[in-house]
Amino acid sequence: MVNLSVSDADFLRLALAQADKSYREGGIPIGAVMVEDGCIIAAGHNRRVQDGDPIAHGEMDCIRRAGRRPRYNGVTLYTTLSPCMMCAGAILQFGIPRVVIGENTNFPGSIDFLRKYGVTVTLLNDPDCTDLLRSFIRAHPEVWDEDIAGRSDV
Amino acid sequence: MVNLSVSDADFLRLALAQADKSYREGGIPIGAVMVEDGCIIAAGHNRRVQDGDPIAHGEMDCIRRAGRRPRYNGVTLYTTLSPCMMCAGAILQFGIPRVVIGENTNFPGSIDFLRKYGVTVTLLNDPDCTDLLRSFIRAHPEVWDEDIAGRSDV
Repeated sequence: MVNLSVSDADFLRLALAQADKSYREGGIPIGAVMVEDGCIIAAGHNRRVQDGDPIAHGEMDCIRRAGRRPRYNGVTLYTTLSPCMMCAGAILQFGIPRVVIGENTNFPGSIDFLRKYGVTVTLLNDPDCTDLLRSFIRAHPEVWDEDIAGRSDV
Repeated sequence: MVNLSVSDADFLRLALAQADKSYREGGIPIGAVMVEDGCIIAAGHNRRVQDGDPIAHGEMDCIRRAGRRPRYNGVTLYTTLSPCMMCAGAILQFGIPRVVIGENTNFPGSIDFLRKYGVTVTLLNDPDCTDLLRSFIRAHPEVWDEDIAGRSDV
C-alpha cells in the first residue's frame, strides 16, 4: 500500500497531455479526462481536424469515450479550456457535478452558466494550458474560429 | 423545372424516418435532419445503443454528419423530439438559427431556453413522433432513463 495523493493539478496535467497529443496530430489542443473515485475512467481531446467531427470537442470526446453509464454522480471532468455552451449543456444534461478547468483566457466559456445550474467549478489558471492553445490559435485562427463558430460570447 | 414546395412537415417526416431506422436497429428512435436552401445536407439518429455512444443524440449525430463548416447561418435543424440541454447547447454554440421539433410530450426539452437565446423554434406536435418514442420508452424504460441521465427538467 502506498500513500497516494493525486491533486486536481495532477489530473489537469493529464488533460493537458491529451491536448498536447492533439496538437502533435495537427489538431486543436484541448484535452479532457474524467475521474471517478480518484481514478481516470476516460480521456479525450478535440478531434475536429483529425476526424472532421464538429461535435468532438475535448470534453465531448471524453464523455463519449467513458461509454454508456446510467449516472455521473461522483464524476469530475477535467478540461484544459473553459467549456463552450455545447459542452456545458452536456455537463448539465448528464449531471456531471464537478468540473476543473485549466484556463479561460483564450475562451471565456460557460463558467457562470455551469455554476448557476449547480455545477461545482474550479478554475486553475494554468499557464501551460493557455500557452498551448494560444500557439494553435495564432497559427490557425480560421480553424479555431470554426471550432466555436465565431461565438465566444454565447 | 418543377414547382417544388417542401414544407416543415415534409422535412420532419424525413427526421421521423431516421428515428424509425434507429428503432428497427434496436436503438432509441429519435432522428434529425439538417436543411439549407431547401435541401437536406445531413441526417442522423440516436446511436447510444448502436454505437455505445452517449453523446450521439439524434441532433448531435446529424450535426456531426454535416461535417466541418465555418457557420450555420440559414440552416434549419429538424428533430423528432424537443432537444435536451446538450443538444440545445450545441445549437446555440454553433449558431443554428432555427429548429423545428416534432414533439415535446415524451420529454419537455429546452424550447424556452432556445427561444431565450434567440433561436426560432417551431413545435409541430406530430403524433407519429410521439407514438414511436413512447413505444420505445415503454419497452425499454432503463435505456431511455440512461439517455437523459434521469434528468427531464434541466
